[in-house]
Amino acid sequence: MNIIPAAVGAAIDDIDTPALLVDLDALDRNVHRMADYARSAGVRLRPHAKTHKCPSIALRQIAAGAVGQCCQKVGEAEALVRGGVRDVLVSNEVVGVQKLRRLAALATEAAIALCFDAPEQVDAASHAAVEAGVTLGGLVEIDVGMQRCGVAPGPPARDLARRISEAPGLEFRGLQAYHGGAQHLHGACERERAIEAAADAVRVTLDALGRAGLPCAVVSGAGTGTFRLEGRSGLWNELQAGSYVFMDTEYAQIGGRDGGLYTEFEHSLFVLATVMSVPAADRAIVDAGLKSYSGEKGAPWVHGRHDVAVVGVSDEHGRLQLGERARRLRLGDKVMLIPGHCDPTVNLHDWYVAVRRGRVEALWPITARGASS
Amino acid sequence: MNIIPAAVGAAIDDIDTPALLVDLDALDRNVHRMADYARSAGVRLRPHAKTHKCPSIALRQIAAGAVGQCCQKVGEAEALVRGGVRDVLVSNEVVGVQKLRRLAALATEAAIALCFDAPEQVDAASHAAVEAGVTLGGLVEIDVGMQRCGVAPGPPARDLARRISEAPGLEFRGLQAYHGGAQHLHGACERERAIEAAADAVRVTLDALGRAGLPCAVVSGAGTGTFRLEGRSGLWNELQAGSYVFMDTEYAQIGGRDGGLYTEFEHSLFVLATVMSVPAADRAIVDAGLKSYSGEKGAPWVHGRHDVAVVGVSDEHGRLQLGERARRLRLGDKVMLIPGHCDPTVNLHDWYVAVRRGRVEALWPITARGASS
Repeated sequence: MNIIPAAVGAAIDDIDTPALLVDLDALDRNVHRMADYARSAGVRLRPHAKTHKCPSIALRQIAAGAVGQCCQKVGEAEALVRGGVRDVLVSNEVVGVQKLRRLAALATEAAIALCFDAPEQVDAASHAAVEAGVTLGGLVEIDVGMQRCGVAPGPPARDLARRISEAPGLEFRGLQAYHGGAQHLHGACERERAIEAAADAVRVTLDALGRAGLPCAVVSGAGTGTFRLEGRSGLWNELQAGSYVFMDTEYAQIGGRDGGLYTEFEHSLFVLATVMSVPAADRAIVDAGLKSYSGEKGAPWVHGRHDVAVVGVSDEHGRLQLGERARRLRLGDKVMLIPGHCDPTVNLHDWYVAVRRGRVEALWPITARGASS
Repeated sequence: MNIIPAAVGAAIDDIDTPALLVDLDALDRNVHRMADYARSAGVRLRPHAKTHKCPSIALRQIAAGAVGQCCQKVGEAEALVRGGVRDVLVSNEVVGVQKLRRLAALATEAAIALCFDAPEQVDAASHAAVEAGVTLGGLVEIDVGMQRCGVAPGPPARDLARRISEAPGLEFRGLQAYHGGAQHLHGACERERAIEAAADAVRVTLDALGRAGLPCAVVSGAGTGTFRLEGRSGLWNELQAGSYVFMDTEYAQIGGRDGGLYTEFEHSLFVLATVMSVPAADRAIVDAGLKSYSGEKGAPWVHGRHDVAVVGVSDEHGRLQLGERARRLRLGDKVMLIPGHCDPTVNLHDWYVAVRRGRVEALWPITARGASS
């Protein structure tokens, strides 16, 4: 584990780097903006904890109106429940006796649900629930066009729902209908078409469930890239968006309604780095590389410095190119980098340094960091 | 932190996933192969701990003949010294009073050196060393063509060397001459040209140092992609290769001498994953994504299954495409993934599960995981 990077009350310049910063004002605005949207649309909000991996942020979202959290892994659910969250949906299949036992153990303290796309998974989860004397909620994941997990919409989904509803220790709750691929389509029309197709998949499944007399309380899905589409669909009644709390360069580039940068939510997550070498007037090297932000969505941006670009990324270094008329960077200067992809970036850090107006207000342990099992 | 993924003595099928596996037989062969090469070439071997981040592996390399370790960060040096390593070079600049104090504190227990490319860094390190009552070794990093950190070869390097040699608490040791970019060039000729140019930079600097009467004990550099070039140069006398202990798909693709896959070292590092969904006969989803292996060098390979390809990678999922005549994968099956890039992949995990011939032999904590400051 890394050392604790700052003291409460410290100025940003006194934070040890690399450090993962959260701007609390921006974070709070994002949290409330999404909560307000969900309220106005008449849908529940169950933000995705796979983004922040931190009960401190989960509890803020819940305080603002979210019904609970979703997450992808049993280890994340453990961190959330241990951190005070009382309603967790694992929006994913869980395979393996040990994992199911761990999940069932949590159900003695919190409402726990998980997803299924195969009958063997249902039987194994039922066994674990009965063994622990608990009830686990069960959602059928349907493939809404992502071609990842999920059963086919309609009758196959209905058959699995029936199996859940008949399994001891399980309670059929509804559908997991998340289109991950649609979140990252750059054109608004492409995103609309993808969610329209997903809506067809939900509709045909709801019809099949209705004809079979299987009540479907929950249709859960949506992400930061498409949540307004699901929110107004009349089909989904629970939104799972997660990245909106932080944003990242990929989401910013997906484009707002005007075709420009996506500005509905603010960047609140930054990797603070220090200039450790200035080998030339137009070049500066910072002490944060691929071990401080993930690289698969490209290099980070330099916050507030449009005249400086990150042009090279290696394991522990970032190479900054200064524009011709840019103010020079000096040894020891701090820069705030906006990561390309927030979720895997968070997964590299043990602490959030929560800052407000330039001062450290709190240190939040990222207790689900690395909790991938 | 993730839960401990396995028990010593367990079979691979009983390891909780995702887990980071090290094949001990392959690791040991890699360790000895590089040590043997260094001995035969008459150069010292100082393997890079930024790859493995683990004293357990460092001590194996030292037992096989390495003189110590190098690393990039003070936090890594701390983990190495606390784990029993007695000779550490931070092959990087260190900026900031707190970091320099931490490094100087280590010098009471181990031989510690660091790199410089600016006089302010020298003065600050000297101050920290004097304050702690220790001596820190100092290397001048020269830019050998990488355009990252480093002063220009020749007189600028000589001037900085003189400043180190005159600074209280510091001892000038030599040159850091590492060409990171050359490691990743795909053609053997391109790599040779890059290291020839680097050798020119070393030569002109050695000349300048010689004329100034500054003895240069160490010329340190090289990586897994080029170590034979530096090793036979007559200039470098210390090799810093790191990735050779594990290998990854990027290094494998750089090409061996026959133009095919690079096979001098073996893949010894794997992310063990479980099949968690089989939505179609030709598709299987595993439970390991970008939070278990880094993605910036492309998708991982499936070890031992040339008929299966990872065609999609998301945060917590890997999508596997099976060839037409491939043996099907079933729910719960385990697959071993070869990461695209070993260093940042290791940085995602808290434990190595060290296996030999299918059984867990040891669990090694990755104590420098996340130690980026």
